[in-house]
Amino acid sequence: MEQHVVIGIDLGGTNTKIGIVNRNGEIIARTVISTRVNDFDDYIEILAGECEKLAKENDCEGAILGVGVGAPNANYSNGTIEFAPNLPWKGVVPFTEKLSKRLKIPTYIMNDANAAAYGEKIYGYAREFYNFIMITLGTGVGSGIFVDDRIVNGQDGLAGELGHFTVRHNGRLCHCGRRGCLERYASASGVVQTVKELLKSDKSGKSLLADIDKDKITSYDVYLAAKKGDSLAKAVFDFTGDILGEALANFSLFSEPEAIILFGGLVRSGDLLMDPLKESFDRNILPAYKGKIQILTSKFSGSEAAIIGASSLVWK
Amino acid sequence: MEQHVVIGIDLGGTNTKIGIVNRNGEIIARTVISTRVNDFDDYIEILAGECEKLAKENDCEGAILGVGVGAPNANYSNGTIEFAPNLPWKGVVPFTEKLSKRLKIPTYIMNDANAAAYGEKIYGYAREFYNFIMITLGTGVGSGIFVDDRIVNGQDGLAGELGHFTVRHNGRLCHCGRRGCLERYASASGVVQTVKELLKSDKSGKSLLADIDKDKITSYDVYLAAKKGDSLAKAVFDFTGDILGEALANFSLFSEPEAIILFGGLVRSGDLLMDPLKESFDRNILPAYKGKIQILTSKFSGSEAAIIGASSLVWK
Repeated sequence: MEQHVVIGIDLGGTNTKIGIVNRNGEIIARTVISTRVNDFDDYIEILAGECEKLAKENDCEGAILGVGVGAPNANYSNGTIEFAPNLPWKGVVPFTEKLSKRLKIPTYIMNDANAAAYGEKIYGYAREFYNFIMITLGTGVGSGIFVDDRIVNGQDGLAGELGHFTVRHNGRLCHCGRRGCLERYASASGVVQTVKELLKSDKSGKSLLADIDKDKITSYDVYLAAKKGDSLAKAVFDFTGDILGEALANFSLFSEPEAIILFGGLVRSGDLLMDPLKESFDRNILPAYKGKIQILTSKFSGSEAAIIGASSLVWK
Repeated sequence: MEQHVVIGIDLGGTNTKIGIVNRNGEIIARTVISTRVNDFDDYIEILAGECEKLAKENDCEGAILGVGVGAPNANYSNGTIEFAPNLPWKGVVPFTEKLSKRLKIPTYIMNDANAAAYGEKIYGYAREFYNFIMITLGTGVGSGIFVDDRIVNGQDGLAGELGHFTVRHNGRLCHCGRRGCLERYASASGVVQTVKELLKSDKSGKSLLADIDKDKITSYDVYLAAKKGDSLAKAVFDFTGDILGEALANFSLFSEPEAIILFGGLVRSGDLLMDPLKESFDRNILPAYKGKIQILTSKFSGSEAAIIGASSLVWK
């Protein structure tokens, strides 16, 4: 008899990553499509088609129990995505209703960072923790929070938006309409904005980053320059780590977690980010919490945690 | 047969309030002692003596089932008070061990704001809420958080220290050693500091508050002056409400609560504080949460909520 599997989907601002996941949390096949499809019904049709194709190619068409999706601004209770500023679809879109109708299998959706936190809880470092906070550092900054071994959903599934915490009063303008959100500093795009600001005030022209077209600089360029010893690039990581460390110390005041686990592209910068971050965290943590809260980086890379976490929604 | 009762204690930086509470959450007798006793064993002896006296005076010596205490920096798991900057006892003091040994009845302790949140949950406005945040605005700022109908304790009972959230980067120095904590702005002492700063920059000398000895101004003086239309006093409330409203909007990002309930001395300022606070909250709330989160003031006055909440620890 065919082994049952599920589909896990990591729906991001740019790409949608699809994986077939077995009972052991292993991704046995994967593919990717663009999220930039303006019409929501068209997007669902493309997504459903890819799911069917992937299943067919891997001889498990009849074995798929359901689909779990991690997406920004997802409402777990209603199965909707609501007012997601990074996605092409405006307002509230009935995600699970449309996809399950099309695929004829149960579909579940949750906040992408919550999905990553589930992945970490079930298959990663968080297995031993009852209280932890997962922070995803991607295009934006997301969070998934476990309190007493349960995810914090809030009154209707939209809790855990720590990327929009005000870290600088009257600071950088965020796409949410507010100012000074953590996301404007500690995301890939926030890092790029920091580079631009530092380059503007740096008249020496000595930085390796000064030679790159300003509109094309990425956080990966900053990483490469810092690795070569570029002092402006290092200053970008120091600034980012300092703000993020202070923010994590503040987040700890809510739930006094055993650990904060970081995940996403920026984390791959390694010690360049983690050293100033940990120094700032230690400096800003409330004395009563000192030495009690671990700062870890996820054992998963890329979109693994989100796909695996999303898939776990079906097994639940 | 004698009706069983419990003792609820609200241990504050200045005073310790003691109440005998019946099964219906009614305080049937109360008294108060000073908390400013430098030797911890002496304090316990005085406290135990007052509990016994109160019980005797009310003919319920044999009917007391136990004692519940709400105190700053209380560790529920260990029964200790740990590194409380507002209390005379340094380091970790074994509160429940000493008091239960002396009184020979079970004793429980929890964070004072958590105790107030329990009081609100069991007997107050929060009865209908599964997700709410209680904020106590007293000498300092405390918080008690309910997520999915359960209090957030954190890894060892010290969660919910939202008074130490950084609301102004590099802001006012806090007794915790950090800078810019909410408590330095939105507490009674924070309000007094705001008055002093505004008086310093106000050269008109027209404010009613300019006539009061600077070292003796209280937040109640500010309230009285604002009630008389004093514009500097009103500016103090506008500033305080603005900072607090922004902080509450940020706290909402964690647990997307149904309500935030305010309690404590400052709340008695009424609309003077609540109008600018609600305006700031609406301006700073994440669009996805707009209109979903109520801002309420507690139905309890004085230390009622904390005494009743602390007493509920025994019934549990």
